[in-house]
Amino acid sequence: MTLHRRSPCPIACTLDLLGDRWTLLIVRDMMFLGKQRFEEFLESPEGISTNILASRLKFLEEMGLVEKQPYSNHPRRMNYQLTEPGKSLRPVLKAIAVWGLKQIPETRIPDDEI
Amino acid sequence: MTLHRRSPCPIACTLDLLGDRWTLLIVRDMMFLGKQRFEEFLESPEGISTNILASRLKFLEEMGLVEKQPYSNHPRRMNYQLTEPGKSLRPVLKAIAVWGLKQIPETRIPDDEI
Repeated sequence: MTLHRRSPCPIACTLDLLGDRWTLLIVRDMMFLGKQRFEEFLESPEGISTNILASRLKFLEEMGLVEKQPYSNHPRRMNYQLTEPGKSLRPVLKAIAVWGLKQIPETRIPDDEI
Repeated sequence: MTLHRRSPCPIACTLDLLGDRWTLLIVRDMMFLGKQRFEEFLESPEGISTNILASRLKFLEEMGLVEKQPYSNHPRRMNYQLTEPGKSLRPVLKAIAVWGLKQIPETRIPDDEI
């Protein structure tokens, strides 16, 4: 997949891929909450819309950060899981969480997050 | 400053503040390249527009991540500098840079970055 690149800077390129308000929340849900199914992502408190969720999952899959597999006997039901490159976003999410907890008042880790 | 919050999650709240393609590039320019003046930010290879730069600098100032001061004898010339909360974004930017360098082909740290 090719994307428009603003520069070769790894920070700029990462923001080209992940620099929006939703993509990293889907990664968060997979990484820390073990969510795998479309409906599970919809249940998160931020209230992502089905359109945005579908487009971001497709994009994450095209980027190779997420892979999907059919599950059980529902031929059209899919499980979404992080690939190794997706899992390697853990230090990014942790650094963001540490910063937010310290710098933004009244933020907290949900009880069910690790 | 009050912002709409999607949830109390520190990752979601941080993305509410900084989750766009430009804000963290301005922080990068201050943190690693020592840029301080409006025209210096405009010179970065990503080609930020004056409108976006002005609005993001204002927002960073309102958030308390950046402070501006007049410099030399130009009463309307301003220096922008990171505050301590702004400087504490260093681990976030470093984690993003490490991920990008490893996961996105043909990214590199510019020669003049630390």
